[in-house]
Amino acid sequence: MPKLDSVLAWLDLNLDRSVERLNDLLRIPSISTDPAYAADCRRAAEYLAGDLSAIGFDAAVRDTPGHPMVVAHHAGPDGAAHVLFYGHYDVQPVDPVALWDTDPFEPRVVTMPDGSKRIVARGAADDKGQLMTFIEACRAFKAETGGLPCKVTIFLEGEEESGSPSLRPFLETNRSELTADVALVCDTNMWNRETPAISTGLRGMVGEEVTIKAASRDLHSGYYGGAAQNPVRVLAKILADIHDADGRVTIPGFYDGVDELPDSVRAIWDGLGFSETDFLGEVGLSVPAGEKDRSVLEQVWSRPTAEFNGIEGGYTGEGFKTVIAAEAHAKISFRLVSRQDPEAIRAAFRQFVTERLPADCTAEFEDHGGSPAIQMPFDSPWLGAAKTALSDEWPKPAVMIAMGGSIPVVGEFKELLGMESLLIGFGLGDDAIHSPNEKYEMSSYHKGQRSWARVLAALGGGPR
Amino acid sequence: MPKLDSVLAWLDLNLDRSVERLNDLLRIPSISTDPAYAADCRRAAEYLAGDLSAIGFDAAVRDTPGHPMVVAHHAGPDGAAHVLFYGHYDVQPVDPVALWDTDPFEPRVVTMPDGSKRIVARGAADDKGQLMTFIEACRAFKAETGGLPCKVTIFLEGEEESGSPSLRPFLETNRSELTADVALVCDTNMWNRETPAISTGLRGMVGEEVTIKAASRDLHSGYYGGAAQNPVRVLAKILADIHDADGRVTIPGFYDGVDELPDSVRAIWDGLGFSETDFLGEVGLSVPAGEKDRSVLEQVWSRPTAEFNGIEGGYTGEGFKTVIAAEAHAKISFRLVSRQDPEAIRAAFRQFVTERLPADCTAEFEDHGGSPAIQMPFDSPWLGAAKTALSDEWPKPAVMIAMGGSIPVVGEFKELLGMESLLIGFGLGDDAIHSPNEKYEMSSYHKGQRSWARVLAALGGGPR
Repeated sequence: MPKLDSVLAWLDLNLDRSVERLNDLLRIPSISTDPAYAADCRRAAEYLAGDLSAIGFDAAVRDTPGHPMVVAHHAGPDGAAHVLFYGHYDVQPVDPVALWDTDPFEPRVVTMPDGSKRIVARGAADDKGQLMTFIEACRAFKAETGGLPCKVTIFLEGEEESGSPSLRPFLETNRSELTADVALVCDTNMWNRETPAISTGLRGMVGEEVTIKAASRDLHSGYYGGAAQNPVRVLAKILADIHDADGRVTIPGFYDGVDELPDSVRAIWDGLGFSETDFLGEVGLSVPAGEKDRSVLEQVWSRPTAEFNGIEGGYTGEGFKTVIAAEAHAKISFRLVSRQDPEAIRAAFRQFVTERLPADCTAEFEDHGGSPAIQMPFDSPWLGAAKTALSDEWPKPAVMIAMGGSIPVVGEFKELLGMESLLIGFGLGDDAIHSPNEKYEMSSYHKGQRSWARVLAALGGGPR
Repeated sequence: MPKLDSVLAWLDLNLDRSVERLNDLLRIPSISTDPAYAADCRRAAEYLAGDLSAIGFDAAVRDTPGHPMVVAHHAGPDGAAHVLFYGHYDVQPVDPVALWDTDPFEPRVVTMPDGSKRIVARGAADDKGQLMTFIEACRAFKAETGGLPCKVTIFLEGEEESGSPSLRPFLETNRSELTADVALVCDTNMWNRETPAISTGLRGMVGEEVTIKAASRDLHSGYYGGAAQNPVRVLAKILADIHDADGRVTIPGFYDGVDELPDSVRAIWDGLGFSETDFLGEVGLSVPAGEKDRSVLEQVWSRPTAEFNGIEGGYTGEGFKTVIAAEAHAKISFRLVSRQDPEAIRAAFRQFVTERLPADCTAEFEDHGGSPAIQMPFDSPWLGAAKTALSDEWPKPAVMIAMGGSIPVVGEFKELLGMESLLIGFGLGDDAIHSPNEKYEMSSYHKGQRSWARVLAALGGGPR
């Protein structure tokens, strides 16, 4: 494959410049969940559309009721496969910002004691670094061959970190334009530093926010304490009821549609050499906290959860304030597996809360999105071709794994466009995505670019 | 009492100017719990010391390791009683500031539809308006008679809303200077708009803050959800365990030293004409939320409580963030009665939390102060004299009540200076102290001044 070799060589030669391009993107604080950053989200979309146009894509920023999408098209050889690449240019909030060593939006390349380098910035791994690996692979093909081995559509979202409210309507409106033979989604991790992974199972998610209200105003806890309902107490009690002593979720019907892990899949997972001790130890933990009698891989890949992502009520500043708050809030997410129905879970949760409200208390709910779990067919020919291409790049062969996180777009692609997705990403478990000091390994960025070049070459000559 | 009549007339004539003086004090944002306002606390102390000097007191701002005290002395007639007046110039934080109709530190006089007037500002009732009623009474005596009917020491604190850390050492150091025949404490409410009250029982308080920690950093709830301990969940579970289904506190030993209400006191309370419906209805509630089979007056006056004053953990901003927080916090206060020991309660709470920590979790505690409950002797001669003076001023006779809030200084006066306190205040239940749009009725301010003039006259000729 002389053409591929020259493309890979181009990527090696141009790594520094590709880092500069990524850094330009990382400097834009495109936090989608906070309306204060709306203009920055648009700026990130415009930056990417401009870059893709410069490579030779027919690229445009496409408005939505929320943050815009970027859609870019490039022709391929006659008869070649058509791939849709998906990534997202929006990022998580940066709080607690005090825990960052440096400005989250001033990317740094840090050299570690072992000589390895990493790019540190919010979005470095999730997902700006990942999406740029694909764009750099396209850039290299164009530079060395003048074309791309596949017909390529690039579709970049700006609301992935905030529930993707515009995604579904956008896909419905632009169905024919966005439907390809297969989707390539770059928002996942490698198995480890040496081993690339294709994620064939994804948990779904339901996001909910609940506000418990009692008195018409904040009360003095001396004057009213004992007689007045305390929404913080009511909320704590309801949240405490959601799990039983064995870590199972007690919401009626929650486990409807949850399948036991098939033996065939369990065998694959058993062969991964996964270390519970290492996985937990990396973040300062030692004992699995989930359902009893389930392995950690089951807990994070194939079992549903209820997680409390945020709670707030009363006085939370410096010092002390003897107040009974008028209201208290919690953000709660459910990770779903198998055939669990997101809207049934949402309804069951709301009923669970409402049934537990004492006198004088009300609950208000906010819908923060939902998506079912995904399972890719293990016999897909796209999967086989991609697995071989990845195995050629990395020290160890690619493995097929599952994923605890949710990528709602994969479900939407399947449901609305009839399209399977190949989930290939180069993140690592210690990238600290969603946390302070998020980083992306330089090896992820460099070999990620090379991996996409190999995958594009393989799919270009691969099945239709 | 021609002298007293002229003093009362002076107060009537000078009401508007007394409001201006109060407003000057209310404009100073002396929030003691937040270090950012330390200079403002000092400014409030200096304002008061200056005002007292202008009246003729020997007044000084006295430094402490925290916010300063104001101490002022004025001689009285030979053989007259020596009273110590206590108030506090610091105020509560103002959040949620968005719920204030106007700037909390720009006082307004608002005329209500019924023609009554009120002063709206943070601290208007708690405690700047209250303490100024006494100072205005002294000003009137000086203006009309050239002296005061008692020897008067005024002692104003700046840390009452933040646990009074400097109070005890200051009292110990200045014991002889501050010891008087009786203390007058103006930080309590009337029984209702027509009926003045002397509070003869006060609940004590223990303030605690607990931080639950698990992983070494915030985690992505997709990758780790199910396997990692979630401090918000651990905290919610522990808090939920603190009350049983009947509203009783489950912490072992919590009720040690709690006495049942004596029949004699119950009879007084039964005669007050207290309406549970009105008390709760005023703040949008209808059903007593405390211990089953206890009246509301018992729940707020004679029974201990555990209240959750603040909770925070994870992502609490706009939108949603799928995070498992590394830590979660709660601020908790216990109201104490009878002979409950604050430090025993604190220790029992900490043990209760620690015993419930799952693997990989730690708890850190912060001490936010504590004080035992107070019960005044019903046969005090000071009480009788004050009751008569108050009954002369208001439409209805003064009543003796209890109070759900805590005024730690009363315990310290008794323990360290051997001094009983007369708790006389002119606040009303709807003053919204500690809440947005705090107010003090103009009638409280005006007739409060007149009440103190009457009480000073009565105590000056009263018992030694």
